[in-house]
Amino acid sequence: VRPYEVIKAKRDGRPIATEALEEFIQGYTSGAIPDYQMSAFCMAVVFRGMNEIELAAWTRAMLETGDVLDLSDIPGVKVDKHSTGGVGDKVSLALAPLAAACGVKVPMISGRGLGHTGGTLDKLESIPGFNVNLSIEKYRALVAEVGACLIGQTAQLAPADKKLYALRDVTATVECTPLIASSIMSKKLAEGIDALVLDVKVGSGAFMKRTEEAQVLARTMCAIGRGMGKRVTALLTNMDQPLGRAVGNALEVIEAVQLLRDEAPKDLKDVTVELTAEMLMLGNVAKDLDEARQKVKQAIGDGRGFLKLCEIVEAQGGDPDVLADFSLLPKSKGTLEARSLTRGYVQAIDAEALGQAAMVQGAGRARVEDKVDHAVGLMVHKKIGDVVEEGEPLVTIHFGENGSEPPDRVIVRLQRAYQIGEQPMPPDPLILERIT
Amino acid sequence: VRPYEVIKAKRDGRPIATEALEEFIQGYTSGAIPDYQMSAFCMAVVFRGMNEIELAAWTRAMLETGDVLDLSDIPGVKVDKHSTGGVGDKVSLALAPLAAACGVKVPMISGRGLGHTGGTLDKLESIPGFNVNLSIEKYRALVAEVGACLIGQTAQLAPADKKLYALRDVTATVECTPLIASSIMSKKLAEGIDALVLDVKVGSGAFMKRTEEAQVLARTMCAIGRGMGKRVTALLTNMDQPLGRAVGNALEVIEAVQLLRDEAPKDLKDVTVELTAEMLMLGNVAKDLDEARQKVKQAIGDGRGFLKLCEIVEAQGGDPDVLADFSLLPKSKGTLEARSLTRGYVQAIDAEALGQAAMVQGAGRARVEDKVDHAVGLMVHKKIGDVVEEGEPLVTIHFGENGSEPPDRVIVRLQRAYQIGEQPMPPDPLILERIT
Repeated sequence: VRPYEVIKAKRDGRPIATEALEEFIQGYTSGAIPDYQMSAFCMAVVFRGMNEIELAAWTRAMLETGDVLDLSDIPGVKVDKHSTGGVGDKVSLALAPLAAACGVKVPMISGRGLGHTGGTLDKLESIPGFNVNLSIEKYRALVAEVGACLIGQTAQLAPADKKLYALRDVTATVECTPLIASSIMSKKLAEGIDALVLDVKVGSGAFMKRTEEAQVLARTMCAIGRGMGKRVTALLTNMDQPLGRAVGNALEVIEAVQLLRDEAPKDLKDVTVELTAEMLMLGNVAKDLDEARQKVKQAIGDGRGFLKLCEIVEAQGGDPDVLADFSLLPKSKGTLEARSLTRGYVQAIDAEALGQAAMVQGAGRARVEDKVDHAVGLMVHKKIGDVVEEGEPLVTIHFGENGSEPPDRVIVRLQRAYQIGEQPMPPDPLILERIT
Repeated sequence: VRPYEVIKAKRDGRPIATEALEEFIQGYTSGAIPDYQMSAFCMAVVFRGMNEIELAAWTRAMLETGDVLDLSDIPGVKVDKHSTGGVGDKVSLALAPLAAACGVKVPMISGRGLGHTGGTLDKLESIPGFNVNLSIEKYRALVAEVGACLIGQTAQLAPADKKLYALRDVTATVECTPLIASSIMSKKLAEGIDALVLDVKVGSGAFMKRTEEAQVLARTMCAIGRGMGKRVTALLTNMDQPLGRAVGNALEVIEAVQLLRDEAPKDLKDVTVELTAEMLMLGNVAKDLDEARQKVKQAIGDGRGFLKLCEIVEAQGGDPDVLADFSLLPKSKGTLEARSLTRGYVQAIDAEALGQAAMVQGAGRARVEDKVDHAVGLMVHKKIGDVVEEGEPLVTIHFGENGSEPPDRVIVRLQRAYQIGEQPMPPDPLILERIT
């Protein structure tokens, strides 16, 4: 099948055979199919979508352009979790040790922060000595021995996805559910997992602002998983405000540790328990969700989750003393408060604006090549429904030396991100939907 | 405006500012904007279309990437005709001299045949010595002195269109009304015309098989003309069967000359008179269409059209004796008849199949770089509604030395292109609609 015919079939909404899609991806990765044909194809997918068979074929083809890890010699079910990205989302830092402490094997290959969202790798690297660039052999050994290992993507995993993402980024074809879903799934399935929990974030701080979009993405990823014989559970979770209170790498590590000591804000704990419980279900270490939740809470309460995190940090070259003494973590140059101009109830928070405010301080990256300052970030004091007095701090800014914007301007960003009114606000639902 | 934003706006169906489209076309022509961004944009246009303002801006921007001829110093209204392409469409060969004989200035820049359709340049080059590659100065002088000049496109006219067409051809974005319309109009408006008659062909031998598509294309081209201050009239004409009887370059020259001697088939004459009358209207040399038709018929009847063709041929280096003695034209190697297998009435003809049959004999090109044999082609004896006896000739094949298919196989193509049944068939309407 000529590349032209593949583009034309997608343009006209006709189904495309699995072999044709495989050749198309292979040809693109090898350079035989030029960028201008792939970009036209991707734009046609924006309008026509992909059916379930095409999605599985496309994902498998991307996966097979690189190495696919085989962890089948490690006993137990291998389960990972993936979040579509939010503000203050430090769930993985607590979830991986909790799941491992409960007997699930957690091979976790994570990404870095970009734009208003953070990345697990950046958070882990706030811990002095923590190494996310392990060899695949070391990674495999730690999953077997420790029960969890958290590393960065290697160039050998799904190289087609890397090339394709760079092209989509300059041709306005990033915002396209089947392409987003296949990109995520090709990377995740290359890890050698048996099952996957998806945390699809919805709200002002997420890529998906509306529940309907998030439902479609979640269903699409579940369908890809099905098509490739993997069990996938997706939770749609609220991202209308930052999760917990900390936004920024070292600040989030602290909050994740507090969670493992059962000292975390309720929303962070609830979401983490729920997502970890789903991992236990997929990992066959709990009969039902109630039992799974109980097991996770026990692992928090008796400190096994905390000890497992210490074990992971030590195994990956980090200093576990940091987890008991936060003064050993990178510290910001200073702090400033963003204070409320009025009194009332917090009606809404523009969580993306908070993510941007953290980013311009150096907590995240505007572009892939930017450097991150692990110490800087925000501590969010007021969340939706909270009462605020005039002049009371909404957010504490932890600023550094190299922010792209002075902290006094960031104050204005933060003040404008809060909507304060006279009406009391009911609590926001946290788990919006469960899709399998 | 960044190219990314232009692609994104089109993807999302938002209107794009004139300056942004101009920069996009200029950037693409200069190479600053890569093929992969343009192909993504074109695919978005396939789905989102273009509004009238965008169409005019896009066409003008393409036009302005090259020379725009200025014929304003030549007295009189300059009017051209463009056909979207059909089988046996030799109208231009008679229309240009007829309009010129009636006082309209006809600057005509034509194309070559591709696929199942012929091209005016190939037909003219059947005349020994005829030169379609004149300098712009010579072209301008002949429009002024002779009243008509027929040449090929130069690289200086709308180079963006050439580059863009090559890209669309490999990215499945050719079949897209706004892109087709702006491509045609950018080339035509670069000729320095004041007004344009469009012959939009509809039917089995045309690119547009359905009237609705042709209406949209015609209206789109009229809208572009309006947006650029040019008067445009479009006729939708029937292409459910070849126009006239001759298909192939020298054979069509003969039929065009016969038309100018008033010896042509009625359908060819009727369409030619109607299109030429529209040129007279746009050229302000007739009060109304009835008067215009009368003037054209007079120019046929009294031989002024024929003499004007002789004048054009001589002025462009051709041998005018050919027009009186057809034996001086290229002659085919031999002829063969495609005969009917049954008796009955011709119900329908697959005109595209007839065009293909002529092409594989060498009358046209499968690819741009193919060579044309001016002598070969078809003479069509039976048209829709005609009575046919078993064994009677449907079509005479004029074959040559270099056809890509042996003539006996072409016979089968032709026999299969005819649908013969027992029902008498009413005559096909010839002019389907007039759009201004």
